[in-house]
Amino acid sequence: MTELWLIGIGTGNPDHVTLEGQKALRDAATVLIPRKGAGKEDLAHLRLDILAASKTQARVVYVDMPERDDSLPYQTRVALWHDEIARRWQVALETVPEGPVALLVWGDPGLYDSTLRIAARLDPAPKLRVVPGITALQALTAAHAIPFNTVNGAVTVTTGRRLRDHGWPEGAETVIVMLDGACSFQSLDPTGLHIWWGAFLGMADQALDSGALAEAGPRIVERRAHARARHGWIMDTYLLRRDA
Amino acid sequence: MTELWLIGIGTGNPDHVTLEGQKALRDAATVLIPRKGAGKEDLAHLRLDILAASKTQARVVYVDMPERDDSLPYQTRVALWHDEIARRWQVALETVPEGPVALLVWGDPGLYDSTLRIAARLDPAPKLRVVPGITALQALTAAHAIPFNTVNGAVTVTTGRRLRDHGWPEGAETVIVMLDGACSFQSLDPTGLHIWWGAFLGMADQALDSGALAEAGPRIVERRAHARARHGWIMDTYLLRRDA
Ligand SMILES: C[S@@+](CC[C@H](N)C(=O)[O-])C[C@H]1O[C@@H](n2cnc3c(N)ncnc32)[C@H](O)[C@@H]1O
Ligand SMILES: C[S@@+](CC[C@H](N)C(=O)[O-])C[C@H]1O[C@@H](n2cnc3c(N)ncnc32)[C@H](O)[C@@H]1O
Repeated sequence: MTELWLIGIGTGNPDHVTLEGQKALRDAATVLIPRKGAGKEDLAHLRLDILAASKTQARVVYVDMPERDDSLPYQTRVALWHDEIARRWQVALETVPEGPVALLVWGDPGLYDSTLRIAARLDPAPKLRVVPGITALQALTAAHAIPFNTVNGAVTVTTGRRLRDHGWPEGAETVIVMLDGACSFQSLDPTGLHIWWGAFLGMADQALDSGALAEAGPRIVERRAHARARHGWIMDTYLLRRDA
Repeated sequence: MTELWLIGIGTGNPDHVTLEGQKALRDAATVLIPRKGAGKEDLAHLRLDILAASKTQARVVYVDMPERDDSLPYQTRVALWHDEIARRWQVALETVPEGPVALLVWGDPGLYDSTLRIAARLDPAPKLRVVPGITALQALTAAHAIPFNTVNGAVTVTTGRRLRDHGWPEGAETVIVMLDGACSFQSLDPTGLHIWWGAFLGMADQALDSGALAEAGPRIVERRAHARARHGWIMDTYLLRRDA
């Protein structure tokens, strides 16, 4: 049975890698690296830096990523895309040398990531090992030196789309939003809310901002648009908290 | 101005430490280690293993932890305890050599941890740096090789006390519970709920269980009681998910 190791590599700083991750890379026989089309930001250089620092002797195998068919409805499009990625992994797995196969996963493999769901499509099922990694949640609170939660308080982790569709989660004190391409905090009544925002966390271009949502919100919308235009892409995350 | 570095060390496996954490330990001039009373489990050996692996030359300074006054009401007791810890850090900081002072924090310094709140009491305020660490959340989902969230779904991170007092959070699909000394999932209607439980995650005695809450719940209550009796203490975390 093939062993497939999903290794969380953290969220932009190559030093987010854990000793466990580094050792797993060293012990792997093969590393699969997904390759996106030309001009797509795939942060391949970060993965290669991490591999080099680990001093692994593993064979590196590139797997071309399929295109998503944007003409299909969202659910179907994603399901078919995952099927096709799984098919390509399967083909790659049939040719690799014996021994554990590693995949480098952004952040932590459990958090808003499809790798586990794609791996579940493999047949025969590989033996899975997950190596936890630093998530954008921790990268954000560390960069601002703020706590994740209030004392004994709950935290809701959610997506931009859900925040837009469902509003502020009932009874929540702290909400952390990921996967938000549209600054969805603009859909909230800002009264009594504070925001801590971070883009390109852990990376050379890390940008941070924070303040009362009413004041900081519009500033963040503008900063985000500029940063995005300059880079061609952006990754950002923010924490919202009700004033006590 | 003193620099105080709060370094997340992960949740039991010394290899949870990140390269950033290891480098920070190496660059620190001093490491403060809290010392609890005799017979209290303070996992000091794990901290010492992590220090040794980092090959730091930092001076190690032990700070005795005060006792909590259990006769006081909860809020007052915690506030006075934090004041007293801060006072002892302050005394220690006045005698250390120049250069950054590091504190090793369990898991991630932002998640259900009082270190940031204690540091905020220091006067003059030190320059804070937070190094993110692997949390019990990631250690749990990695050990079970499960995703943290459903596709585009929200996750509520909460405490045992809140789960008992407030019940299942309105509209939640996934709930992760920490700081639960009482298996508070017993207060829920188990219909349609699934549990993934982990104790001593990342450690030699790691224990895992999962299943429909109605069946797995009573089994976990029993396993937890046994494990706790054997060790004298326990740390556990669990994820609850509504069946789709
Ligand atoms: C597909 S999810 C992957 C999350 C990842 N598995 C993790 O553990 O953080 C991508 C989202 O994570 C957040 N994110 C990841 N890396 C980030 C970074 N370096 N800075 C800011 N946000 C980041 C953004 O919200 C982005 O939309
Ligand atoms: C005071 S909180 C500290 C959390 C820590 N800062 C983190 O990032 O995980 C302690 C709680 O974390 C959880 N926890 C920490 N380490 C754990 C482990 N190794 N196994 C299971 N649960 C753990 C338990 O729920 C415990 O009650």
